[in-house]
Amino acid sequence: MLKGLPFRYQETSSLTNVTIIGAGMMGTALTWPLRDNRHTVYLVGTPLDDVIITSIRSHGFHPRLERQVPDGVKPFRYTEIDDALEEVDVVICGVSSMGIPWFGEYAGPRLKEEVPILSVTKGLEDQENGDLITIPEAINNRLPSHLQGKMKINAIGGPCIAHELAARRQTRVVFCGHDDACLNHLQTLFVTPYYQIELSKDVTGVEVCAAFKNAYAFGIGIAIGMMEKEGVDGLAKMYNPQAVLFARSCVEMGGWLRILGGDAQAVIGLPGTGDLFVTVFGGRTVRLGSLIGSGLVYEQAIEQMADETLECVEIIQRVGRAMPKLESRGILSTDDFPLMTYLHQVISADRYVEIPWEALG
Amino acid sequence: MLKGLPFRYQETSSLTNVTIIGAGMMGTALTWPLRDNRHTVYLVGTPLDDVIITSIRSHGFHPRLERQVPDGVKPFRYTEIDDALEEVDVVICGVSSMGIPWFGEYAGPRLKEEVPILSVTKGLEDQENGDLITIPEAINNRLPSHLQGKMKINAIGGPCIAHELAARRQTRVVFCGHDDACLNHLQTLFVTPYYQIELSKDVTGVEVCAAFKNAYAFGIGIAIGMMEKEGVDGLAKMYNPQAVLFARSCVEMGGWLRILGGDAQAVIGLPGTGDLFVTVFGGRTVRLGSLIGSGLVYEQAIEQMADETLECVEIIQRVGRAMPKLESRGILSTDDFPLMTYLHQVISADRYVEIPWEALG
Repeated sequence: MLKGLPFRYQETSSLTNVTIIGAGMMGTALTWPLRDNRHTVYLVGTPLDDVIITSIRSHGFHPRLERQVPDGVKPFRYTEIDDALEEVDVVICGVSSMGIPWFGEYAGPRLKEEVPILSVTKGLEDQENGDLITIPEAINNRLPSHLQGKMKINAIGGPCIAHELAARRQTRVVFCGHDDACLNHLQTLFVTPYYQIELSKDVTGVEVCAAFKNAYAFGIGIAIGMMEKEGVDGLAKMYNPQAVLFARSCVEMGGWLRILGGDAQAVIGLPGTGDLFVTVFGGRTVRLGSLIGSGLVYEQAIEQMADETLECVEIIQRVGRAMPKLESRGILSTDDFPLMTYLHQVISADRYVEIPWEALG
Repeated sequence: MLKGLPFRYQETSSLTNVTIIGAGMMGTALTWPLRDNRHTVYLVGTPLDDVIITSIRSHGFHPRLERQVPDGVKPFRYTEIDDALEEVDVVICGVSSMGIPWFGEYAGPRLKEEVPILSVTKGLEDQENGDLITIPEAINNRLPSHLQGKMKINAIGGPCIAHELAARRQTRVVFCGHDDACLNHLQTLFVTPYYQIELSKDVTGVEVCAAFKNAYAFGIGIAIGMMEKEGVDGLAKMYNPQAVLFARSCVEMGGWLRILGGDAQAVIGLPGTGDLFVTVFGGRTVRLGSLIGSGLVYEQAIEQMADETLECVEIIQRVGRAMPKLESRGILSTDDFPLMTYLHQVISADRYVEIPWEALG
């Protein structure tokens, strides 16, 4: 990791126009450090965000963060995106992984080569042949041909619960990209005392961890559900099983990095252990897992999570689809990924699947 | 890691005499898998364990586990140690790190070269020149000279809360040692469906993680105390700071392994991320940290923990003593360990020391 810059509030002369596309929780949470640094912030909803944009327009309130957005954030519907991009210096991709095709097709033709992108989307895209590509690659592939390979597409990893960022609670994240000057510039725009930023050139390492942590946190959630179901036995709670799954998750993330090309340091640091840790406390992902751990089959559990964006399901489905293809090409052995294999069984089977404790070595 | 053996209950013919020295929570918890496998188990208290041994003798109850010990466990006072060692096949060292000198000096002369040791003690010993040695090395150094370098001294790492083991709740640990046959034998004695065992030859890697996780979990406890003090802000709790410290802990454990000679895989797996995770939920260590995070200075916090064995304080003191010596010998740079440096300040200062968030990169 490169060292973070020391924090200083920005001079007025360096103020920047930042357009965030996607007004969900994480995209919107980024308006806090940006507005604290006095940048001009345009927040553009996707076609799914109309209720959010209407709410912000009428009384400045984000209904999912359950909080007033910072003063001065300028909300736009997706139909008004051209106004939000007119004088833009930096574009934030804040859509879900399922929204990446829309981002590429709708926003893509409106982007300019010299305006960098910073993605906060978590996921991987599986290709027909089983290859798993990062979000920056997936964005690039969906840009108009004259922009492909030309734009600087950066991304954010590391622990950051959106509610906490919006409350200005301390965290430290990683901005990754291939261009030093661009990374340094992005860091300068966002860094505040509560939002510390490390820089990394290891885009694959950071992005693979960011994607897989949702899958594996879902698995740890299953053990949390088992604990809630079992209850205490004397002074014994049930954290050992969660810890076994946590460690196995880290080992398998390291395995994915060896296959997909990232540096194992990403697992050890903020993008891996840090983000996985915080996701265990972070809401939807673990809730779905814990419903299953309490004894529900997947279809029953998912019914209780209607209308939620579940990146964990998306990544497990994509990786589950890719694994046999990668195995048949000799790129991986599924034996090295018993936990991911199990997680894919959980969301595919119409019966309860036990955690294969003896196989997790 | 070597693969775990598949589980099978032992044949009567292979039953073994195991003597556990140290009747604290972890030493005693190991009686569950041993008795489930029908081995003969002698449990010897240290001079500090007389209350425990008396309680087990009179009504089979361990007062700190708050649980009946398994049927057939044979309790002994330290003065009766010779009876417990007469026909012993395996010796477990279950004392605290502060008890290692006693173990070496009192039990050492009674041990036999051919009887292997398995240590569940967590810690490192700092030497006059700043070297930090593992518990198996520290035990070896305190054995009578005719046994030094001759005994097979193995150790246990990985996530295992004693209360949970005593409730037969699922976990998976690592037995480490230098001799394959001995490790395989120990695994056979202990393995049960709820106590899965991996094997490792990387004694330094496992033991360094086992020791440092107590120090770093104390640090994460400080952030937990801050969260408890701050309370919620809307939907925002305060897990991001804990996650930043968790990741930094893993990075620094990796740094210690580079210096002390272990394999980084130990950090990624059960001994590192797994044991650190479970320790964050595990009691004394985090309680001390959270008292400090709530605003107490160290001396005030430690007063509330009287009579508790605090391995976290022991390891931070030892490492804090060693660091300047190792730095002056050119072996490390304290700049690479800002979190450990901070933790040592916390337990040394008579004032409240803020977490140096900007330095944790």
